Amino acid sequence: MLPDRAFFDALADAARRETLPRFRTGTLVANKLSGGFDPVTEADRAAETAIRDLITVSFPDHGVLGEEHESVGLDREHVWVIDPIDGTRAFISGVPSWGTLIGFYSNGRSVMGLMDQPFTGERYFADGNNAWYRGPDSERQIRTRDCATLANATLFTTSPHIFEGNDLKRYRAVEEKVQLFRYGMDCYAYTLLAAGHIDLVIENNLKPYDVGALIAIIEQAGGIITTWEGGRPEAGGSIIAAGSRAVYDEAIAYLT
Amino acid sequence: MLPDRAFFDALADAARRETLPRFRTGTLVANKLSGGFDPVTEADRAAETAIRDLITVSFPDHGVLGEEHESVGLDREHVWVIDPIDGTRAFISGVPSWGTLIGFYSNGRSVMGLMDQPFTGERYFADGNNAWYRGPDSERQIRTRDCATLANATLFTTSPHIFEGNDLKRYRAVEEKVQLFRYGMDCYAYTLLAAGHIDLVIENNLKPYDVGALIAIIEQAGGIITTWEGGRPEAGGSIIAAGSRAVYDEAIAYLT
Repeated sequence: MLPDRAFFDALADAARRETLPRFRTGTLVANKLSGGFDPVTEADRAAETAIRDLITVSFPDHGVLGEEHESVGLDREHVWVIDPIDGTRAFISGVPSWGTLIGFYSNGRSVMGLMDQPFTGERYFADGNNAWYRGPDSERQIRTRDCATLANATLFTTSPHIFEGNDLKRYRAVEEKVQLFRYGMDCYAYTLLAAGHIDLVIENNLKPYDVGALIAIIEQAGGIITTWEGGRPEAGGSIIAAGSRAVYDEAIAYLT
Repeated sequence: MLPDRAFFDALADAARRETLPRFRTGTLVANKLSGGFDPVTEADRAAETAIRDLITVSFPDHGVLGEEHESVGLDREHVWVIDPIDGTRAFISGVPSWGTLIGFYSNGRSVMGLMDQPFTGERYFADGNNAWYRGPDSERQIRTRDCATLANATLFTTSPHIFEGNDLKRYRAVEEKVQLFRYGMDCYAYTLLAAGHIDLVIENNLKPYDVGALIAIIEQAGGIITTWEGGRPEAGGSIIAAGSRAVYDEAIAYLT
């Protein structure tokens, strides 16, 4: 038996109960953050525990790869890939661009995935065939945008500081060609791409749990996501995601 | 007679009716943005017109300084300072960090102000004495955070690309000292500061309508906002905002 949307929703709801009450609580503890009080780490760990508990009950034979706790059964047919809070710096800063990422791999491929932003009430889900959005404005199937050329594209990355040396030069070569670039959105940028609002995301040094859920969402929305070398992205590393083949082909030529 | 909260809310609601339906519509018109269809400019103009119409009816003797339409009566005792969409690049990219800014100056000082983010449902308001937040999580009076030192501070700016030459060197000197810096939040960063989630915002080349509303919100939440030279910020220019005197004093020493 494979998981369905209701099960993914239950996982996201369980995580939300741990993350949202701890969001924007830093104001209460100014200057105490270095004294051992760390709401984001607490939220991260509690959310991952809540997600794992539900998986263990319903799918005891599945593996789990998480950010916070030890991995289990990574050689199994089905493996859950979890980042309870992607974007911990956003979380710490009060910016609702962090998200809970829950991916589902079969035989090493991301085939289902969910991204949840509890504060804005936005949830993205890839069901194995199609990608869906639920938010305060609408509930609908999503498709990436068919941008025809890099010169018309909007590009996001977390920060130019994530790149060094040749990687920075390659990234800058793309940045110079696009119509608009923006920094600072973490997993939120990938879901904006999946929903057709932007065209390109370029990052590096990603862990599997940073992209696992997003791969299924982007691919099932019609987008392309690979490593900078053009390979499968399930293991993370240097990642490019594009909404259209034209933008992907133009951009990756600068990255390889 | 001076405006009250209900009047500010009516202005924000009128703007919201023009902006929100045009947010995230770029996906419908990929590659047509250069063909004359420009939802953000449409939203900007329509929202400012809606705000001005209400002001003209209720306060015909007040001046108005806006981004989109001609200024009126800037030498009058009371002047409204309006940016219908601060953060047009965020708006275009589908990121809900843009906001509608409505400031109210008396004799050249910002004394009341409102920031509204319609998608997330967050609204900040300075009533002349105190600053308030309404959002999906709570409704409450807000205070800035009493961060004791720059080394513990979280800093935001729109992008390092806004600085050049000596300004860039000065900005980088601060960035190197803080605990955490982030890019890309527009007016949203100033309201995070007012609500005590972050400690410092540094920007330059701001217009009066970029900061007019935010000055009252930050000052009435207990924060400090000036030019890099330490002067009043009502005319815009190079701006520093801090949640505490300690962080302000440390940071401005690098900027002047």
